[in-house]
Parts: sequence; C-alpha cells; structure tokens
Amino acid sequence: MRGALLAFAGTVLAGIVAITYAQEIKPDRAIKYRQGALTVMGWHFGVLGAMAKGERPYNKDEAIKRASIVSEVSKLPWEGFIPGSDQGAPTKAKPEIWKEPGKFKDLQDKLIEETGKLATVAKNGDEAALKTQVGATGKACSNCHDDFRNK
Amino acid sequence: MRGALLAFAGTVLAGIVAITYAQEIKPDRAIKYRQGALTVMGWHFGVLGAMAKGERPYNKDEAIKRASIVSEVSKLPWEGFIPGSDQGAPTKAKPEIWKEPGKFKDLQDKLIEETGKLATVAKNGDEAALKTQVGATGKACSNCHDDFRNK
Repeated sequence: MRGALLAFAGTVLAGIVAITYAQEIKPDRAIKYRQGALTVMGWHFGVLGAMAKGERPYNKDEAIKRASIVSEVSKLPWEGFIPGSDQGAPTKAKPEIWKEPGKFKDLQDKLIEETGKLATVAKNGDEAALKTQVGATGKACSNCHDDFRNK
Repeated sequence: MRGALLAFAGTVLAGIVAITYAQEIKPDRAIKYRQGALTVMGWHFGVLGAMAKGERPYNKDEAIKRASIVSEVSKLPWEGFIPGSDQGAPTKAKPEIWKEPGKFKDLQDKLIEETGKLATVAKNGDEAALKTQVGATGKACSNCHDDFRNK
C-alpha cells in the first residue's frame, strides 16, 4: 500500500514536472522551431520542384533522398504551434490556427499524406509521376498557406 | 554515332543546368536553411537534455522518437554552408568554416556518429546510458561551436 502510494506520488510529480516543462517553452522559441522545420522542408522540396520544372536534371537517387527528407520533416513543424505563439517573434501564422485547430490538423495530415506519397513515387523512379506528385504536394502546402499563413 | 553525340550533348546540358541551379542559391537562403536545421535539431535534443537533467520525466517512447529525429536531422545542416555564405544574413558562422573544411567536416562526422549512438541507446531503454550519451552528443555540439561559431 505504501509502495502504491509512493508510485502514485511519483507519477503525479512526474506529471507536474512535464507540465512545468511545457509551460516553460517560450513562444519565440516555438516560432523559430516551426519556421526552421518549414524552411528545411522547403529547401529539400525546392530541389524536387526544380527537377519537376526542368531547372535541374532529374536524378533518381537525389529525388529519393530529398523526398524522404521532405516526408520525415513534414511531420515536425506542428508541435511548434503552441498556444500563445501567435506572437513573440516575427510570424506569418494567422490567429485562425488556434481558432480552427481541427481544420489546421486536417491540412497537416493532408500534407503528411502527400509527402509520404512523394517518397514512394520517388523510389519508383518514374520522372513523370514524380512531377505530378510534386504538384500535388505543392498544392497541399499552398492550401494550408491560403487559410493559415499571412502573405 | 548521332545518338551518342546527342546523349553527350544532353549530359553536358544537364550539367550546365545543375551548375546554374547551384549558383542560384542565394547565401541568405542557405544561411536560413542551415540555421533552420540546427534549430530543429536543438529543439528535439533539448527534450532529451531536459530528461537527462531530470527537468522532464524519462519516457522511453518519447526518447526514441526525439533521438531518431536528432540523428536524422544532424545530417542535414551542412549543405547550407555553401561558399560565400559567411555573410548575406545574420550568422554566427566563423570564416574558419571555409578555411578549414576538413576540420569542419570531421566535427560534423563526429556529431552524426554521436547522434547515431543516441538513437541506438534510446531504443535500449536504459535511462542512465541515455543520459551519458546525451552528454557525449552535447559535447560534439559544443566542440564544433567552440571552433566554428561566434558567441
């Protein structure tokens, strides 16, 4: 019984520590984090975009590498949109992000779905299919920007 | 013969396109990219650091997730250190980066090695070993910062 109580107290304490940690994340840090993740995604996606537009020669291995990074990094920015981080550093994030979290989440999921397909298509080595999927992925980016990012 | 010549011409053209693309990367974009990648790495590594310091409760699944991201992202920043990007946007990068590329590369490789170990150790679920490896990884960060990053 005493052990159970101690274990319970430990769990409560751990919970308090975790909440305190979360509260200590400063908005400016969260803003810079999510911008960093989106910049990294954009950098690698940009290489695929250049291939799709013929500004850069198609290269299967490079496409696989870039698409894999885009797919993985597309999962990352979202935890940076913590409550209260609509300000604290320069940001284009619209307040709608925190007013319509369900809609925002749907658009994140759609992006992650499209970048997953992008990684798969890149591995197939079909240049035309990659081009199509680059377009679909870019559309997922702009759909979210249209609603949730200021110009 | 004509086919071979055309293929050769195509290869030359593709090479010129690629070189042109590389030349078109603006220093400020490269600076923001590498800073973004380093910020993303720091965000996830920070969670492991908080666990190691007892500021956040140890959680095996979370440690695995964070360490895996740190390991993957640690491979990314370096292509942003393109020639000429010692300026063009606010940056703490020291000119030594471009004067001692071999030494800079060694420190990148050391970091990638340590983050790889971090991902492995996290999977083992040994909290004490994770703490030790968080320390070793942090040391790889600061070793590079000492030589190549301004305060």
